[in-house]
Formats: sequence, structure tokens, C-alpha cells
Amino acid sequence: MTPGNAPAPPPRSTLVVTAHAGDFVWRAGGAVALAAARGEKVTLACLTFGERGESAAAWREGRTLEEIKAIRRDEAERAAAVLGAEVLFFDAGDYPLVPTAELTDRLVAVYRATRPDVVLTHPAEDPYNGDHPAAHRMALEARVLAQAVGYPGEGDVIGAPPVFLFEPHQPEMSGFRPEVLLDITEVWETKRAAMECLVAQRHLWSYYTDLAVRRGVQLRRNAGPNLGLAHTTKAEAFMRPFPQITKELA
Amino acid sequence: MTPGNAPAPPPRSTLVVTAHAGDFVWRAGGAVALAAARGEKVTLACLTFGERGESAAAWREGRTLEEIKAIRRDEAERAAAVLGAEVLFFDAGDYPLVPTAELTDRLVAVYRATRPDVVLTHPAEDPYNGDHPAAHRMALEARVLAQAVGYPGEGDVIGAPPVFLFEPHQPEMSGFRPEVLLDITEVWETKRAAMECLVAQRHLWSYYTDLAVRRGVQLRRNAGPNLGLAHTTKAEAFMRPFPQITKELA
Amino acid sequence: MTPGNAPAPPPRSTLVVTAHAGDFVWRAGGAVALAAARGEKVTLACLTFGERGESAAAWREGRTLEEIKAIRRDEAERAAAVLGAEVLFFDAGDYPLVPTAELTDRLVAVYRATRPDVVLTHPAEDPYNGDHPAAHRMALEARVLAQAVGYPGEGDVIGAPPVFLFEPHQPEMSGFRPEVLLDITEVWETKRAAMECLVAQRHLWSYYTDLAVRRGVQLRRNAGPNLGLAHTTKAEAFMRPFPQITKELA
Amino acid sequence: MTPGNAPAPPPRSTLVVTAHAGDFVWRAGGAVALAAARGEKVTLACLTFGERGESAAAWREGRTLEEIKAIRRDEAERAAAVLGAEVLFFDAGDYPLVPTAELTDRLVAVYRATRPDVVLTHPAEDPYNGDHPAAHRMALEARVLAQAVGYPGEGDVIGAPPVFLFEPHQPEMSGFRPEVLLDITEVWETKRAAMECLVAQRHLWSYYTDLAVRRGVQLRRNAGPNLGLAHTTKAEAFMRPFPQITKELA
Amino acid sequence: MTPGNAPAPPPRSTLVVTAHAGDFVWRAGGAVALAAARGEKVTLACLTFGERGESAAAWREGRTLEEIKAIRRDEAERAAAVLGAEVLFFDAGDYPLVPTAELTDRLVAVYRATRPDVVLTHPAEDPYNGDHPAAHRMALEARVLAQAVGYPGEGDVIGAPPVFLFEPHQPEMSGFRPEVLLDITEVWETKRAAMECLVAQRHLWSYYTDLAVRRGVQLRRNAGPNLGLAHTTKAEAFMRPFPQITKELA
Amino acid sequence: MTPGNAPAPPPRSTLVVTAHAGDFVWRAGGAVALAAARGEKVTLACLTFGERGESAAAWREGRTLEEIKAIRRDEAERAAAVLGAEVLFFDAGDYPLVPTAELTDRLVAVYRATRPDVVLTHPAEDPYNGDHPAAHRMALEARVLAQAVGYPGEGDVIGAPPVFLFEPHQPEMSGFRPEVLLDITEVWETKRAAMECLVAQRHLWSYYTDLAVRRGVQLRRNAGPNLGLAHTTKAEAFMRPFPQITKELA
Repeated sequence: MTPGNAPAPPPRSTLVVTAHAGDFVWRAGGAVALAAARGEKVTLACLTFGERGESAAAWREGRTLEEIKAIRRDEAERAAAVLGAEVLFFDAGDYPLVPTAELTDRLVAVYRATRPDVVLTHPAEDPYNGDHPAAHRMALEARVLAQAVGYPGEGDVIGAPPVFLFEPHQPEMSGFRPEVLLDITEVWETKRAAMECLVAQRHLWSYYTDLAVRRGVQLRRNAGPNLGLAHTTKAEAFMRPFPQITKELA
Repeated sequence: MTPGNAPAPPPRSTLVVTAHAGDFVWRAGGAVALAAARGEKVTLACLTFGERGESAAAWREGRTLEEIKAIRRDEAERAAAVLGAEVLFFDAGDYPLVPTAELTDRLVAVYRATRPDVVLTHPAEDPYNGDHPAAHRMALEARVLAQAVGYPGEGDVIGAPPVFLFEPHQPEMSGFRPEVLLDITEVWETKRAAMECLVAQRHLWSYYTDLAVRRGVQLRRNAGPNLGLAHTTKAEAFMRPFPQITKELA
Repeated sequence: MTPGNAPAPPPRSTLVVTAHAGDFVWRAGGAVALAAARGEKVTLACLTFGERGESAAAWREGRTLEEIKAIRRDEAERAAAVLGAEVLFFDAGDYPLVPTAELTDRLVAVYRATRPDVVLTHPAEDPYNGDHPAAHRMALEARVLAQAVGYPGEGDVIGAPPVFLFEPHQPEMSGFRPEVLLDITEVWETKRAAMECLVAQRHLWSYYTDLAVRRGVQLRRNAGPNLGLAHTTKAEAFMRPFPQITKELA
Repeated sequence: MTPGNAPAPPPRSTLVVTAHAGDFVWRAGGAVALAAARGEKVTLACLTFGERGESAAAWREGRTLEEIKAIRRDEAERAAAVLGAEVLFFDAGDYPLVPTAELTDRLVAVYRATRPDVVLTHPAEDPYNGDHPAAHRMALEARVLAQAVGYPGEGDVIGAPPVFLFEPHQPEMSGFRPEVLLDITEVWETKRAAMECLVAQRHLWSYYTDLAVRRGVQLRRNAGPNLGLAHTTKAEAFMRPFPQITKELA
Repeated sequence: MTPGNAPAPPPRSTLVVTAHAGDFVWRAGGAVALAAARGEKVTLACLTFGERGESAAAWREGRTLEEIKAIRRDEAERAAAVLGAEVLFFDAGDYPLVPTAELTDRLVAVYRATRPDVVLTHPAEDPYNGDHPAAHRMALEARVLAQAVGYPGEGDVIGAPPVFLFEPHQPEMSGFRPEVLLDITEVWETKRAAMECLVAQRHLWSYYTDLAVRRGVQLRRNAGPNLGLAHTTKAEAFMRPFPQITKELA
Repeated sequence: MTPGNAPAPPPRSTLVVTAHAGDFVWRAGGAVALAAARGEKVTLACLTFGERGESAAAWREGRTLEEIKAIRRDEAERAAAVLGAEVLFFDAGDYPLVPTAELTDRLVAVYRATRPDVVLTHPAEDPYNGDHPAAHRMALEARVLAQAVGYPGEGDVIGAPPVFLFEPHQPEMSGFRPEVLLDITEVWETKRAAMECLVAQRHLWSYYTDLAVRRGVQLRRNAGPNLGLAHTTKAEAFMRPFPQITKELA
């Protein structure tokens, strides 16, 4: 109970909107784990299971579509549990993920239900995977609609939460420039454990470990004079499509 | 005295590098006042007095070059005192400010003496005033050189402090996009008082007051759901040429 | 009657395509009033009433959708009358405005009926309101289709009228750079009167008055040596997506 | 004499700043001829003769440096006479043209003496010829300095004349986009005659004739519905680094 | 028979995806003819006949839609035969060409059937013709989908063929920069003969001949020291959206 | 002897212009080794030894400036020998490397003496090290001057060799996009051996090994369908500032 008997504010809320079930692990697993470790609520909205575009091995083994979706769902649920987040599946169909007004409307409902303080999603460009920009567009459109009192639906209108765009697989080809480097060293083992839940994409484990090291090197190189960062620093990179709001330059 | 008899760390240090004596007031007076109000040290490195390019009224009154420099120095010293900062004058000559190795070297010495945690300077482009980009280039070059143990000069090498580029007079024509909006509401009266020290540029008082209001509106429009900001919010805008380093997305 | 008994040419025609009913006032009211004051014909094509995205106060008062549309229609009609223009409502539904082939086709018919000498619409980007880019895309696509003899529909094909993109609410965040500054001083009172018809958005009156002053300052700063412009100069800013055609550089 | 015995205003003045003696013909000969044909004053400031970089044939014939400069001067003077303009030679040395404060100062004096209503110069980029960007930078810097009452030198301060950047030899490689297309049909024969004064660069006559035709085609394609332009239309293309100031959108 | 009795590899395959029936001639006729002359297989996928947007003369003559489609088909088939390529017509309807999942799916089938080593299509922007960017998006999306084992349909998955984007009609207005200049001198007469099959667009014959000359001049200007290229060099320009893969820098 | 008793052409020549003595190894060692392995001549023009900016360990050990230059020279000569190239030292002084007409003139002489078929140098931007852009500018300016018969100096004029810009240490912060991926697998051991000559920068050995693996992964992902590349593929990335000239799209 806070002073004056006012109710305690709800815990901070983070919403992650991804195209495929695995994206939240590779691209934002550290950010998710950090928020969860601080006792915050994290909701993962996966628009598809990545059943067609990111499950090549299972297709080669002759699995059916439903089997593959079940496998990906199971993997994603276990990874989410490791990170400390809740996962929602939209099952919208991938490769291609086709933006529709109905999908956007379902996202508006999630925004109004979770009332996020922070939103994470894909960046606007990815020449190697059109589902990622499609998810980006719907995530950002729904964020605007959820702010309008005139937009119909359950729940109260929300404010304008800051947005962070996570790193695509080929950053230089997607116009991605690291504008924020998040220190994930203290939750690195958690992120690695979540990655290892994604057995179907085992070949990416070392790739994203190396990326975390590399972004950690970059973090140290750009850090101020007094940080005393260790060589084991790991990091994730993000872009900001909207201005940072702050009370102190640092 | 901190526990274990270790010496207290020095207060945080901010270095502001400007082309002309007035720039630190219009463009960063709020940031300077905020840092000073927190008990931090702020050093203002003014490369010129703005004696030729920003003193039209004095020239029209028939003042000599030396008189104008004295007027501008006096105004800037009083404004710096209001803000709570120390000002250094390089007297390098404006309109045009010509970059030289010797000027850059003097800036390296200031970096090593002040050991800044934060650096503020002009952005890279300004088609209306070439002195601003010239100051930008020297400020950024000196920051790199000051980090090199092999660069000669007094003082220890520094780390890599974050840099913030403040808003030019015509932002849309200078490629300026607000990437950081700093809430300066609580020091607004101080910034206004510093502005009023610059009697030679009286026509800019209302212009920069309006800009602070406008950036305040933008801050509120981009702020998250729980900030409860008042309609009196004032802000200053900045760009970041290097990635933000953080332990939390917000 | 012109010499040789040829019929007088029709008056010049301006077509303004907007997402919402209020846009033509805030963003182009001066341009509209200037054209009307010269005796030209101005047609305002409002794709929606802005009933969901730009009528927050009415929703909070508990109005129904139909009531809000009626209010916005009435306000827009009165503002158009003040400016001297004719307004057409497409009632396509806002937030989101969804581009369709049928809407574009209706715009083609308007192009062929009004045969514009000048077209005004939204710019291509606006991260704060997706309806504006949607209107932009349809306005520009219809302009191309209306030029093709093979595109079916009433009316003759048109030429390629110049296009001007008016200023969004947050220009720096929308890639907006003022490429044309239109002096609207002589019709300023008319624009202000039209703004005051939009009672539902009263909070924007002073905002867009200040913007007109600011663009006026910029106009004077960029004007040539002989213009003798007064301090009361007001202006509106535009971008040009196509080259200017001229017989004299000025 | 104008009514009321006020003195007639001086004729409009155009200043063209080029790197080499031939540039004003190929890139802006039509604009120069049009202005002269309207009775305006045009001043051509050629920073070099193009004696090293654009006189390959003469070097191959074994001419001396002084001979080549004399040839280029003579050609340029004859071309200027054909166009109706006055030419000034700075003889600053080309390949490379090295920007200096002294050269910029001489340009300031020309700005103050000619008081231009319009300025033409090279664009900011040209990977095939560094002299062109060097001339661009000095032309734009001098234009700013000439406006400052505090900048020393003869003559009164000037206003802020509009600037047009003419087309480089390889536009797509130099970031050049036609923002203004000037109809030069009526002075085409004059421009062609001026081109034929430049005997040393005879291979460029047909190249720039073809370019004029091509820009004419583009002008017609972008022209409004009522222009009735002939297939013989010729044009020159320009960029605008500063906003256009206007009283009418067209 | 290759050594060891291994079957000979299939000939190299090129796939060209265009919005309209004429595009492959004007924009890539040289590239097509070169590949065919080397004995390679070239498949032309024309999404529409260009019956509405690029057949103005036929409409003015009063032809019906079906007649115009037949004329354009016949012209395109004859041009393809001259170049040595096979043409497929999708008859998807132009002006506007509307992207659909069904069209993209048909393109995936073509990718899997032709297994291209090289893909050619339109660039991403064209403010003068929205059908071109629409074709671009579907061509690139289908290329990604065709690589996914999980995407249903006939045929084996393909690798990631390099993509070349050919030159639009107004390159500077479409963000087109020549990144690859292809020497088509040896097949120029073939391209010209194919152009002359397109009787409905006779006015473009000289335009694209001039362009080939101009790109040839640019090729020679950018060629290395030892190429000994003749003044008759003709070229076509392309952009690369993906990195070039090579074993030698040249 | 070639047929008809004509003299054999000289071997192909590659010129590498770098700011510091180590750059050619980290950034282009594979390209150099490949050219040398084909029997071509490679010349390395190192403008400085990197004595101040890239020798931190030696300064910390208390070495003198001359000692450090000797160490760096020795390391670079051994690395060049491993790669099979000749190295030239300009000893122009680093941190900062100041561009001068005299340095550029010395580079012109190297261009004319080596007559390169290919040029490699730094890209235009690097916010972490201003010496790299300085070297870039001089390398490109000298390449243009060396083509002009009017530019004085020894040797014949050269043609226009293609230029490749190698990868900076922080590519995303320097506007670097891989436009060419060079397969260096077959010379990887040689590059690694050259890296190990640079004992003063031992911490970079694994960094640039990882980069070679990562660019190799990217090469395979972008390679066409028939390449059959192994998982051991290593690559270096480059940008092209000028168009590629080719006789075949691939």
C-alpha cells in the first residue's frame, strides 16, 4: 500500500509483436528477460507460428502443417516460460503474412488489454522476409488506433508508448542502425536457455550468441568513461522510430 | 566520504562546444541548467564570440570589433552565471570559423581537463551558417583524439562520452529530427533569465520561448501513458550520433 | 469574350484531396483562400469526416457515430464556404482509412470532372496517422489513372497537374522539408475564420496560428533582397513531388 | 522614370559561379540567355579557366599552360558575349580547385557589387570532378557572409537570393534530381551558338543538345494540362537548396 | 557428355518479370538478347498486356479492350521471338495492376519451374506508373516464397538468384542510380529489331536508342584502362538490391 | 609470347590506399592475397603507420614515437610479404591525418606508376576514426587527377579504374552496406597468417576471423542456386562508389 492509501500502480507492461513464434527469442529475448526479472509483465503477440517460412527441417522430415504448428507452439511456449512472459498466438498464417483489418483489430484489443509501457516489434524493412515488415506495419497501426477514443472495441484508450524495433537477421541490408544498445549481461544465461528451447532452429544458437558478444563489444566501445564494463558484456540492439523522452541527457 | 574510505567520485561533467557565444543559451540552456541544478559541473567552450555573424545591431550602431567582442563576452558570462556553468572563450574568429589543427588541439586539452560524461554540440549540417558545422567537426574530432593514448598533450585519455546535437535555427533545412526530447520545465525560468542576458539578440527571446512550448507539446504527444505532464511542459530537442547505452528500455 | 470570338478559358481549378474533413483548413486553408480570391474554382475531396480519429471530444461526450459525422460535415461545410470552395464527402470511414480500387476510381472521376490545374494532398509519410499516407497514395494513383485514355469512366483524360504536399502535424518526424513557402498574409483572416468553424478542434487554433507565423518568419529569411515583407507575414509550407515547370528562375 | 519621380529600380541581376570557364555554357546557357533577353544583368564568375582538367586536346597538342588559359579565356568571353553576359575570371587554378578564405572573400565582394536576385552554381556532389563541389561550397559560403553586416569589405550587405544548382555531367551519380525544369526553347539557338564558341570541347555539342531535348520531353510530361507545348521544347534542369517563395501555387 | 558420365548441367536460366508487355524490350532487351545469344534460356513473365496504360493510340482509334490485348500480345510475342526468349502472359489487368496473393502464387510456380540463375524486374519506385512498383513487389516476394520448402506448390525449392532492377522511364525521379552497366553492343541490332516490333509505341524507338548510346558513353567513362571500347558502345543500366557474389574484384 | 610476337600485357595491378599500416590486413587481406595468388601485382600505399591512433599498447609500454613507427613498419612489411604485395609508406602522421595537396600529389604519382586495374580504399564515413575518411578523399581525388593529361607529373595518364571500399570497424554506424561479397575461402589461411604478423593488435585476430565467417554466411545466403558452397566459406565485403561494367549479368 502506497502512502495515503492510494492503490499501488500496476506493474509496468511490455508488449512484443512478432511475425513468427521464434522471433521474440532471437531478437528480444534479453529485453524480455530483463523486464520479467524486474517483476514486470511481458506479453508476446506472435502473429504466426513460422510454420512455413521458418521450419524447413520439419518440412523436410515430412511433417504435416498441423504437426509443425504444434511443434512451433510448444517450443515457443517453453521459451516464453523460461523468459518469464506470456505468449499469445494469432495463427494468421505465414509466408506470406497478409495484413488485414481484422488482424489489426485483434492487435488493438491486445494493446487495450495489456496497456503497454513499452512496445517491441520488427523494423520497417527486411528484403529477406516480407512477413517482418508486415508485422511492423500492423503493430504500429494498431498502436495508433488503440489511442483513439473513437475506435470501437473493449477497453480504455491507451497513451503513446515508446517503440523499440529489434535487430533483423541481416541488419545492413535492412537499413538497421543500432540506436539503442541494451546491456543484457545479467540475463544472458536465461536468453541462451530460451534459445535452446527452439530445437528446430539449432543452427541459430551460436549465431545469436556471437551477435550478443559483438553488440556487447560495441556497447563497451560506445559507453561513457566510468562504466567499468567486463569483457563478458552481452547486448541487444534496437532502433527508435519515435523520440526518446527524458529528464536527463545520459 | 563513501564507505571504505574511498574518495567520493567527482561530480558528473558536461562539456558544451559551440561556434558562437550565444548558442549555448538558445539551443541547450535547459540542458545546462538541469545539469547544474543537479550539482554537476558544466563547461561551455565557445569557439568565437559571434562578433561578425551574430551581432548585426552592434555593427549598425558603429561599434568596433573589439567593443563587440567585449559586449558579447560580457553577455555570455552573465548568461553562463545564471545557468550555473563555467565559460571558456577560444576567440577563434567567426564568419567564417575556419577549422584548424591548433583549435582542435586546444579542444582536446579541454576534453582531457574536464573529462566529460556528456558532450553537447551543433549538428553536422546548417545551410544558413557554416560556422555551426565547422564547430561540430572539430568537437567530434577532438573527442576521438582525446581518447588516444598516443595523442600528445596534458592529462589522461578519456572514455567515449555520449554526444547530443542540439537544435539548429531551421531544423527541417538542416536534416534535424528530434531523437531526444528533454523535459526542461523545472528550469524554464532559469533558461528564460539566461536568454534575457543576451540583449543584442532580443528578437530571439520569444522565438525560443515558442520553440520550448512546441517541443513540450511534442514531448507530451510522444510520452508514455503514465506521465501526467502539465500543459506548461517545456522541452529541448537533440539528436544522437552514437547509440544510446542503457540497462532498461523506456 | 477573347479576340476572334473564341470562348473564354474556364477558370483555373484546384483539387484538394484529404483524409479527414478538417485537414483542408489547417494544412491548406491559405492556399485555398488565395485561389478562391483570384476567382478560381477549388474542390475539396474529403475521403472521411475524421469521425473516429479526430473527434475525441465528441466521443467523450457520448455522441453516436452518426451524430459525430453530422457535426464534422457541418463544420467542414461552413469552413469551406468561408474559404470559397466546394466540398465533396466520400464517407469512406477513417481510423483506418483503407485504400480500395473503388475509392480510387471515385477519385479518378473527380479528377476528370474538375480537370485540376493544381492538386494538393498529404505527404507520403506520417507515423502518427496512417490515414494521411493512405489518402496520399490514392490521390497520386488516381491522378495517373485519370491521364490514361484506356482507363474507363466518364469525362476526358486530363494532363499532368502539378502536385503540392501540405505540412503534416509533426513535420520533422514525417520527412517533411519546406520546399515551397506560400505567402498567405492577404488571406490570413479568412483562414483564421475557417479555423474557427472547427469548434471540435479548438485547441488547434493557436497552434496553427503560431505555425503560420513561424513559416512566415522562414519565408522572410529565405526571400530575396527586394521583397520588403512585413513582420506580419504568414505562410504555408509545401513539398513538390514532381519538378517545377517554369519560364523564369526566381 | 517611374511615377512620382522615384528612380527606376535597377534591372534584375543574376550571378553564376562556376568552377571552370565552360560550365556556364553547358549547364546554364539557357538560363543566362533568357535573363539577358529580358534585359537583366548577368555576371559570370569563373573560378578557373579549366586549363588542366578540361583542356585535354590542347595539352595533347603540346600547348603551354599560358596558351591554354588564353584559349579558354577567349572562348569563354565569346560565349558570354553571345549569351549577353559579363564574365569575370578568378584564375584560381583547377584540378584541384582548392577552397581558400581569400577566394571566398573575393566572391563576397562580387556578391556585394552585383547584388544578385538569383544565384546559379554547381550542386554539392560530383564524384567525377572535385572542382565542382569546391566551387559550390565557396559560392554558398560567400552568399551567407555577404549578408552579414559584420563581415568586412566594400559594399552594402545583401538579402538572401534564391539559389539554383545546375545539372552535372552524370546526374544520377551526383545525387541530382530535377526539381525545376526551365523552358529554354525561345533562346535555344543562342545557347547552341554559345556552345559552338567552345571549340576545344566540340564533342560536347551534340551531348548537351540531346540533353536539352530530353529535359524538354520531361518538361512536357510534367507540365499541366493547358500548356500546349511543342515537340521542339528544350529545357535545363536545376535543384533548389532553399525553399521557393511564392504568392501562388503553380 | 561431361567427364565421368555426369549429365550436362541445364543451361543457365533468366527470368524477367514485368508489369506490361513492352517493358522487357525497352528496359532489358539487350540483357535478354545477350543471354539468349549465349544459348541460355530466358523466360518473360508479363503480368499484363499494358492494355489500358500503354496503348493510348489504340484507344484513340476506337479499338476494344480485347482487340488491344490481342495487338499487344502479338507484338510482344514477335519481339520475344526476335530476342530469343519465351513469353508468358498473366493477363492480370493493368492501370492499376493490383497485387494479390493469387498472382504472387502463380509467380512462385514460374520461379520453381524455370529455376532462374538471374532475375530481372522493375525497381521499387516509379511516381509515374504504379504498376511498375506493384510488379516489383510481387516479383521479389515470390522469389522469397519460392525458396521455402514449407510454401506449397509444384516443383522443388530454389536457391537465391541475384536480382537486377532495370531502368525506369524517368530514372532521376525514381531513385534510380546505375549500379551495373551492361555492354549490349554486340546484340544492339537485335534489340533494335525487337523495339521495332512494338509498333504501337513507335515514338519510343529513338528515345531508347538515345538512352543506349548515353549509357554506352557512361560505360566507357567508367571502364578501366585497358578496355579499348569503341564509340559505338551501347549499354543498359541496372541496380542490384542484393550484394554481388564474386571470386574476383573487377 | 603471345601470337604475332606482340609483347605480353603487363600483369593486372591493384592499388590499396589506407590510412594506417594495419588496415590493408584487416579490411582487404583476402582481396590482396587472391590477386597475388593469381600472379597480379599489388601495391599498398599506407599514408601513416598508425603510430598514434592504433598503437595504444606500445604507448602504454613507454615506447617513443620513432620506436612505435619502426614496430608498425616492421609488422606491416612482414604482413605484406605474407600476402604477396609491395608496401609503400608515406609517413604523413596520423591522428589526425590531415589532407594536403602535397600528399594527394604523391598519390597521383603512385597511380601513374602502378597503373591500377583495381583500387581499394576506405569508405567515405567513419565517426570513430576521421583518418579513414581523410584517406578516402585523397585516394579518390588523386584517382581523378591522375586521369588528366593537364595535371603535371611523371608518367602517362591512366584510365578510370573501378574502386572498392572496404568494410570499416563499425559498419552500421558508417553507412556501410555490403554491395560486393568476395569469396576469400581459398586464401583464408594466408590472410590469417598476415593478421598474426600484427602482434600489436592481437585482440583483433578473433574479431576479424569472426567477421570473415559472418560475411561467408551472408555470401552463401545470397549466392545463386548452383554454387555448392561449403560451411567454411569466408568472405570480405565491399561497396562500389561507381557502376560495375560488365558483359554478363551474374
